[in-house]
Amino acid sequence: MTPTIQLASDLIRLRSVTPEDAGCMPMMVERLEKIGFKTTWLRRGDTDNFWAVREGSNQGPLFAFAGHTDVVPTGPEDNWRHPPFAAHIEEGYLYGRGAADMKGSLAAMVVACEEFIAKHPDHKGRIAFLITSDEEGPAHNGTVKVVEWLEDQGEKIDCCLVGEPSSTACVGDVIKNGRRGSLGLELTVYGIQGHVAYPHLAENPIHKLAPALAELAAEEWDKGNDFFPATSFQVSNINGGTGATNVIPGEVKVVCNWRFSTETTAGELEERTRAILDKHGLKYTADYKLSGQPFLTAEGPLVEAAQAAIRSVAGFDTQLSTAGGTSDGRFIAPTGAQVVELGPVNATIHKVDECVKAEDLDKLKDMYREILSRLLT
Amino acid sequence: MTPTIQLASDLIRLRSVTPEDAGCMPMMVERLEKIGFKTTWLRRGDTDNFWAVREGSNQGPLFAFAGHTDVVPTGPEDNWRHPPFAAHIEEGYLYGRGAADMKGSLAAMVVACEEFIAKHPDHKGRIAFLITSDEEGPAHNGTVKVVEWLEDQGEKIDCCLVGEPSSTACVGDVIKNGRRGSLGLELTVYGIQGHVAYPHLAENPIHKLAPALAELAAEEWDKGNDFFPATSFQVSNINGGTGATNVIPGEVKVVCNWRFSTETTAGELEERTRAILDKHGLKYTADYKLSGQPFLTAEGPLVEAAQAAIRSVAGFDTQLSTAGGTSDGRFIAPTGAQVVELGPVNATIHKVDECVKAEDLDKLKDMYREILSRLLT
Ligand SMILES: [Zn+2]
Ligand SMILES: [Zn+2]
Repeated sequence: MTPTIQLASDLIRLRSVTPEDAGCMPMMVERLEKIGFKTTWLRRGDTDNFWAVREGSNQGPLFAFAGHTDVVPTGPEDNWRHPPFAAHIEEGYLYGRGAADMKGSLAAMVVACEEFIAKHPDHKGRIAFLITSDEEGPAHNGTVKVVEWLEDQGEKIDCCLVGEPSSTACVGDVIKNGRRGSLGLELTVYGIQGHVAYPHLAENPIHKLAPALAELAAEEWDKGNDFFPATSFQVSNINGGTGATNVIPGEVKVVCNWRFSTETTAGELEERTRAILDKHGLKYTADYKLSGQPFLTAEGPLVEAAQAAIRSVAGFDTQLSTAGGTSDGRFIAPTGAQVVELGPVNATIHKVDECVKAEDLDKLKDMYREILSRLLT
Repeated sequence: MTPTIQLASDLIRLRSVTPEDAGCMPMMVERLEKIGFKTTWLRRGDTDNFWAVREGSNQGPLFAFAGHTDVVPTGPEDNWRHPPFAAHIEEGYLYGRGAADMKGSLAAMVVACEEFIAKHPDHKGRIAFLITSDEEGPAHNGTVKVVEWLEDQGEKIDCCLVGEPSSTACVGDVIKNGRRGSLGLELTVYGIQGHVAYPHLAENPIHKLAPALAELAAEEWDKGNDFFPATSFQVSNINGGTGATNVIPGEVKVVCNWRFSTETTAGELEERTRAILDKHGLKYTADYKLSGQPFLTAEGPLVEAAQAAIRSVAGFDTQLSTAGGTSDGRFIAPTGAQVVELGPVNATIHKVDECVKAEDLDKLKDMYREILSRLLT
């Protein structure tokens, strides 16, 4: 059992379901302070956060590891092959909620720092940790609040490595150097309620909506670009009707979401949606919610360091990707930081029997350490 | 207080919420048997029904009054101006659940028979009552079962006067000489569930449905005819989605209904719907339910008698209509009977403070009696 696997196991055993930290942060901080980190605790609402920094010996970038100690719920624990908080190892796989998302990464970050600092106690620049216990939940009191605090301090991260599980087949095969934006819409279309036998006295909002929705679903919002797939629109929920089969409903509600590339802005999506809804003569209210701007770290020292580190540890070329869901990188990138996500294979995250290949955690630790070497020595 | 208003009040005081008869039928039957009717009780399941006939002196049509003793629920009784089963009269209006739908009509039928038979004890043909206590409910054990029984007996109604509240502004201004058919559809469209961030791995059934639904809503099913408005299609309910805003749902359910004219058949509607759904490449299940064939009594002795009776009692020409919801006429008409609906003003039916102008019940009774005179003397 290596130090990385040991620490990952210890973290998994703490039941830190969002927004509980359950002692994970103190366990990390104790290790970090031993190697010279100074910690600022930033509890906000129900959420624990910390920012820890180790000063190097001279000028250089502020490099931050970012991550979360919270995990998604387990569902019925009986459905698990191994108890979700037991950190069992079987045939080389470490099982447990958070093994891949992302307590394995947290352990790899801590041990990577220990190894790096042992060898380079007088490294350049600064190493930091930005850790929250609410990434999987509403994320109102987590990273976004730490970023606000950093701005208040006049502190600016240059390079941020987020430990989200980016890999698909083997650790390091994919790193995320950006994410699409996410725009939500709650749309209510209004008609006039009535009896199906007297349609001339009513106005069916579902009928009014249908052609507009068909047009929204068929719309090409953009074609994407070298870094982003085309912007995608999806309806997640639609509900109208009283349950009675003889009543024309007075309204219908639709919840939808765009994942959008840097070729389009949230404002443009709203404007084009408004044009389509108005063209079809709908009476409606539209409640838009921007939950993340798209971001992109197209190139630069961080991407290059990550690519080189992966090549040296794993022997292959990693692939850059901006696909997939949102991450806390959306809060950090707008400050001007370079942001890259590198973490374990994500095949089992948020599922029953979440697990990670135990040896991948040490490879990941090596990659993290090599990134530090390339940027801070 | 006239005999009609008195009997209507007595019936209203019996709490005959569907499928309860609560003593209404015995009250009617006692009066009818006194004037020579012979009763057959036809309880089916939870529903009371009776068929009563008075034989005339010679050949002639079988004329039947049809109606129901059950009433819809009152809702919170505190919301009523007068208690719903008190049969209060205020400023000329008789208040109570069932006053208009249709205990007033039942009273008018009974008293019309009493007056008619007193004057014409040796009338032609036969007078019958077909009364159920489940018209407002599922209607599985009511009129449809009596009609089956009549067919088993080899009995065939020639003219049927249904006492449903057909009038709009004053009693007799509108009679229904037909009704549209009613066809229901429960449609489930299937896709592939997934995460909104990975739409290429999912198939959104709402997106697939939208253009098909737009086409169904825009379809001209027919143009109607002299007696029927155009066939109308309405979606009453649509539901898809798990509630989560980041999940593409695996299916969406739509409930819809056609009210159709005699220009189209239920089979044609199904076939054209199938063509539209298939054209859009939907994967779906479609569950059709025909709850009533359209029927029409375009002309003939019954319509003419009703028109003449209304003219003689009220002094105006009535209007023939096939608009509005279904009635038990849908079960009787397919046997070949002429069917007409004539009853009080329907403005307050199924609502709080249901009421009827008290003097309208006597006018209605006179109209019923005049119809008997025209057909059976
Ligand atoms: Zn995560
Ligand atoms: Zn009725």
